[in-house]
Amino acid sequence: MKKELVAVVLAAGSGKRFWPFRHDKNLFPMLGKTYFDFTVRDTLPKEISSVVLIVSEKNAAQFAKTEFGIPCTRVVQKEGDGMSDAIVAARDALQGKSILVIIADDVSDPLMFRRVLDTAGKRVFGVLPAYRTRTYFPGGYIAFSGQRPIGIVEKPGEGKEPSAFVYFGGQYIEDADTLLDALLAAKTDRDDVYERALTALMKSHDFAVVPQDEPFVSLKNPWHVLDVTDYLLHHRLIPGQGKRVDIHNNVVIEGDVYLGNNVRIFENTKIVGPVYIGDNTIIGNNNIIRDSYIGADCVTGFNTDITRSYIGDHCWFHSNYVGDSVLEGNVSMGSGSVLANLRLDEGEIYSVVRKEKVHTHRTKLGAMIARDVRIGVNVSIMPGVKIGSGSMIGAGVTLDADLSEQSFCVAVKNGYDVKKNTKTVTIPAARNAYKSKI
Amino acid sequence: MKKELVAVVLAAGSGKRFWPFRHDKNLFPMLGKTYFDFTVRDTLPKEISSVVLIVSEKNAAQFAKTEFGIPCTRVVQKEGDGMSDAIVAARDALQGKSILVIIADDVSDPLMFRRVLDTAGKRVFGVLPAYRTRTYFPGGYIAFSGQRPIGIVEKPGEGKEPSAFVYFGGQYIEDADTLLDALLAAKTDRDDVYERALTALMKSHDFAVVPQDEPFVSLKNPWHVLDVTDYLLHHRLIPGQGKRVDIHNNVVIEGDVYLGNNVRIFENTKIVGPVYIGDNTIIGNNNIIRDSYIGADCVTGFNTDITRSYIGDHCWFHSNYVGDSVLEGNVSMGSGSVLANLRLDEGEIYSVVRKEKVHTHRTKLGAMIARDVRIGVNVSIMPGVKIGSGSMIGAGVTLDADLSEQSFCVAVKNGYDVKKNTKTVTIPAARNAYKSKI
Amino acid sequence: MKKELVAVVLAAGSGKRFWPFRHDKNLFPMLGKTYFDFTVRDTLPKEISSVVLIVSEKNAAQFAKTEFGIPCTRVVQKEGDGMSDAIVAARDALQGKSILVIIADDVSDPLMFRRVLDTAGKRVFGVLPAYRTRTYFPGGYIAFSGQRPIGIVEKPGEGKEPSAFVYFGGQYIEDADTLLDALLAAKTDRDDVYERALTALMKSHDFAVVPQDEPFVSLKNPWHVLDVTDYLLHHRLIPGQGKRVDIHNNVVIEGDVYLGNNVRIFENTKIVGPVYIGDNTIIGNNNIIRDSYIGADCVTGFNTDITRSYIGDHCWFHSNYVGDSVLEGNVSMGSGSVLANLRLDEGEIYSVVRKEKVHTHRTKLGAMIARDVRIGVNVSIMPGVKIGSGSMIGAGVTLDADLSEQSFCVAVKNGYDVKKNTKTVTIPAARNAYKSKI
Repeated sequence: MKKELVAVVLAAGSGKRFWPFRHDKNLFPMLGKTYFDFTVRDTLPKEISSVVLIVSEKNAAQFAKTEFGIPCTRVVQKEGDGMSDAIVAARDALQGKSILVIIADDVSDPLMFRRVLDTAGKRVFGVLPAYRTRTYFPGGYIAFSGQRPIGIVEKPGEGKEPSAFVYFGGQYIEDADTLLDALLAAKTDRDDVYERALTALMKSHDFAVVPQDEPFVSLKNPWHVLDVTDYLLHHRLIPGQGKRVDIHNNVVIEGDVYLGNNVRIFENTKIVGPVYIGDNTIIGNNNIIRDSYIGADCVTGFNTDITRSYIGDHCWFHSNYVGDSVLEGNVSMGSGSVLANLRLDEGEIYSVVRKEKVHTHRTKLGAMIARDVRIGVNVSIMPGVKIGSGSMIGAGVTLDADLSEQSFCVAVKNGYDVKKNTKTVTIPAARNAYKSKI
Repeated sequence: MKKELVAVVLAAGSGKRFWPFRHDKNLFPMLGKTYFDFTVRDTLPKEISSVVLIVSEKNAAQFAKTEFGIPCTRVVQKEGDGMSDAIVAARDALQGKSILVIIADDVSDPLMFRRVLDTAGKRVFGVLPAYRTRTYFPGGYIAFSGQRPIGIVEKPGEGKEPSAFVYFGGQYIEDADTLLDALLAAKTDRDDVYERALTALMKSHDFAVVPQDEPFVSLKNPWHVLDVTDYLLHHRLIPGQGKRVDIHNNVVIEGDVYLGNNVRIFENTKIVGPVYIGDNTIIGNNNIIRDSYIGADCVTGFNTDITRSYIGDHCWFHSNYVGDSVLEGNVSMGSGSVLANLRLDEGEIYSVVRKEKVHTHRTKLGAMIARDVRIGVNVSIMPGVKIGSGSMIGAGVTLDADLSEQSFCVAVKNGYDVKKNTKTVTIPAARNAYKSKI
Repeated sequence: MKKELVAVVLAAGSGKRFWPFRHDKNLFPMLGKTYFDFTVRDTLPKEISSVVLIVSEKNAAQFAKTEFGIPCTRVVQKEGDGMSDAIVAARDALQGKSILVIIADDVSDPLMFRRVLDTAGKRVFGVLPAYRTRTYFPGGYIAFSGQRPIGIVEKPGEGKEPSAFVYFGGQYIEDADTLLDALLAAKTDRDDVYERALTALMKSHDFAVVPQDEPFVSLKNPWHVLDVTDYLLHHRLIPGQGKRVDIHNNVVIEGDVYLGNNVRIFENTKIVGPVYIGDNTIIGNNNIIRDSYIGADCVTGFNTDITRSYIGDHCWFHSNYVGDSVLEGNVSMGSGSVLANLRLDEGEIYSVVRKEKVHTHRTKLGAMIARDVRIGVNVSIMPGVKIGSGSMIGAGVTLDADLSEQSFCVAVKNGYDVKKNTKTVTIPAARNAYKSKI
């Protein structure tokens, strides 16, 4: 690499597919940081000398104070513009440089950027990280001629994939000016300008692909929070504990676990890592907590089971089962309420995203609940249900569809009849038999 | 005090506001005794030489055997008569004496009567104990001129209080004859004769007020059982344990706890005092019991959580949450049933008392359940609901209104549909993955 | 006994009263074997030199490989034929022999056959084991003249019993040919031919009765699986454990318990014997398991309570209460679901068998669930309900009637209303108070 290296960080994702959550997806709190810290800030290679941060009109304010320790130019991508428009808009900061295009949605092995730059050193013009797909994924597939990448086909459709490889965040381009010219030449009103520009460049320049067998994880839909949480808990969790942690009698802790300041864990509870528990959170008696992120200032109460879930700050529980679910924050669940995570037929769980029924590719998926939700006692929420913020769900409801923001959902009137009880209630003699037996 | 001192004990309260409970409120069982024992019998000052016990036509029989160790005259207050009529009716036993008027509903610091009598020794004609209110209370407010009490305004209405102080049980009057004359002079058909008589006396006689910053606790409405229980557990509980107590492995007991004869506590249970557990009661495995009174001959079963509650004798549980609730006795709850104690909006819980919606001044309040009630499995009872004796509530009901005596409440027919299941149920292969993982 | 002794084993029971279960009742898996092993194979007296095994057209294939280590003649009893027809059909194998008639449905003390044969040695022609009934049982009552049995009255009707004794499996007959003649002579189209033949023989031959004070247990109706399980756990369980059993911290095991190979028991669980747990079964954290049979390859999950129940292979649980219930196999229950086992009025639980409401003589009886059933979260199943195989029951349902095979039962639509929530949900200040208190 002879030129200066600039990181172009794409963080303008609209998040329209991320409903019901209200956090900007890139700034979703994760393990005491934000998702963006893991995908970008903590993983920027040392060769990067400056950053071009591309944000949206909607999230610009939230990124206003993001620093990288090196010079940063901020570009606001207009609503409706694509990724290539954003790169073109940043052209002043890119001219005469090499670039590493980082997609803030994507998290992968922190060594991947290293491998891309090492490959870049071997006299190629462009490098694409790509992972081997097992099922169809609506992304950019790489077409090869022998070992040589010759193009990218954006969302080819199932059965029409040119190879098994989909490229993801971390592309290296030797010369930004050449890329900018290609982007301008490829410009249409479709959303695959970037991919078509790369395809055009591949005709005249050498590209290499850095393959990854493991799928990368990208934060698009709300259930991807589970994939991301799982990835970070397994790959980025630093076990340990903060100050004034208080662990009562007969608590079992296994695997990698981080406990924040002032965490308290009461009797007869088991924590099976990887688990992250944020500051001031109280884990009650007789709980089981497995493979989960729990934020700060939560109380799990008595007899709660949280498994493979993301629990944001200020959530309260009491004798609940929370499996494969995402609670954004300030959600309370009444005693006996359950977030079901498995269909009776154990089939795939679908979700409605922007009015379209989509695959989640999951047979285990609980609820996705936005901030500021209250759930009564003995409520049952069906697998894959999404709940908008500010909603309340009354006792005894079995909720089997998404709920929009600020909904109030109650069991219908006349759920019971009252008649005359003609029997007399006395203290049963049988109880003495019980008592004498045990 | 030159005259002989008589305690006039007012125990004729009708209890009409105490529904659904069937016990006479003054004889409600408490910590192995009755409420009356705590408010009167155990706290009578030694200066008292005789008692005038004023009971009602309804509860006279229940008080028939109540003894004080000193002479006692019983007076039956007629239905419809007020407190002043009752005192007048007892005049033969009062003439020529000083009196201490004790209201059996009220419980306060046992030293309060001592402080009243000490003040009485300082040459005043009358002494009134009074507590500082923080919110409006429908009682008798004291009007002052400087430090001097000059009258009592009964139920002035919110915003019209003459001071912050409401008088309560334990008034001293130097000369019973003077009070009797004033009561006869003040007689009308309204129910504030006693207060107007005291007001009249204040014009010509010296009165003193003995202030108390802590609210006193008075047993009027059914939820007051919780206040009284809390008060007695914190101030009158004598920790200890009876004979043949059997505590199994890994039981944690913290704080002040009394365990009666033959109490058994099973594994992995935590008791957090103050807690009183009556004779022969069995606390099952994996329970948590906090800040509660539990009577005799109860069984809590597996996995029950009882918090800040009053549980009468012969109650049975099984995996329940009982918070801020009163169960009079012989109540059974099926597995998974919950007495909810918090509204979704976390607002104040109202109650209907004699057809009127009244404040409870509580944001945490569960159910109030009379004797001889049966509750099925997975029932949800909403905050503040009251249930009459002899009632039964079927499985799965969400009960959101009071139930009268001897009701039979069941989930409506057609609560479910039955269709043909077109899928075949087999043993899922995924289970092996689970097994190999844990 | 001068003649060779043949066991005539009656295993052709139609099982029509055994719905919803799909196993042949005699081959129901029990404690690692089958019921037939306990009633017949393991208890055959050593004097038996050959077996006549009478099976039905329906179960013949299932018994095709059953061996006894001695010669065995198989006879298929035709549909519609009675027990006497079956014996007559086996006549070639019986001529010239003595016989012991064993009813495969009945299980009793293994020493009973010994007592029958000992009595047979005392020069009687026939011996009948019989037990003393306490309530009416629809079986064959023995009529006596003094000590001498003089006849059998089949199903006399309540109040018309000739004695308290009902005969059961294990009758000895000195001479098979005499019995065969009597059976042919008694033949009618009623179903008491065998009993009338014995009655006729009693006029001319000496019979003895071997009495038993304990009721014998016979497998006719589905709830009898509970009686049989209870009997076998108490009388035939061999405590011990297989290979690679893994018991975690703070597990309490009391009484007689058998743990199969690879059984795992997690923290804070209590097992109260008699309990049998089959190979590869996982008992989760914070469970209580009492007086139950659990088959192989089950997972009980977190916080489950299984009491006095039969659990077949491949069942999965999660925070359930299963009391006095029979799950044939491959049944899954969602979190919070309960099999209720007690009526609100604590009265006898009835069951519909072949369209007729019948007594179960039980006040504690849960559900009887066939193979391959899926139950959602927070489901309540009422006492005595039977569920056919291949059925699914949706979340939140309260099921109060039997469900036929392959049913799909869901809570009715419009179980809840959605309105606008006009309140704002914020993080309640009260929570800090809670945190500072505990």
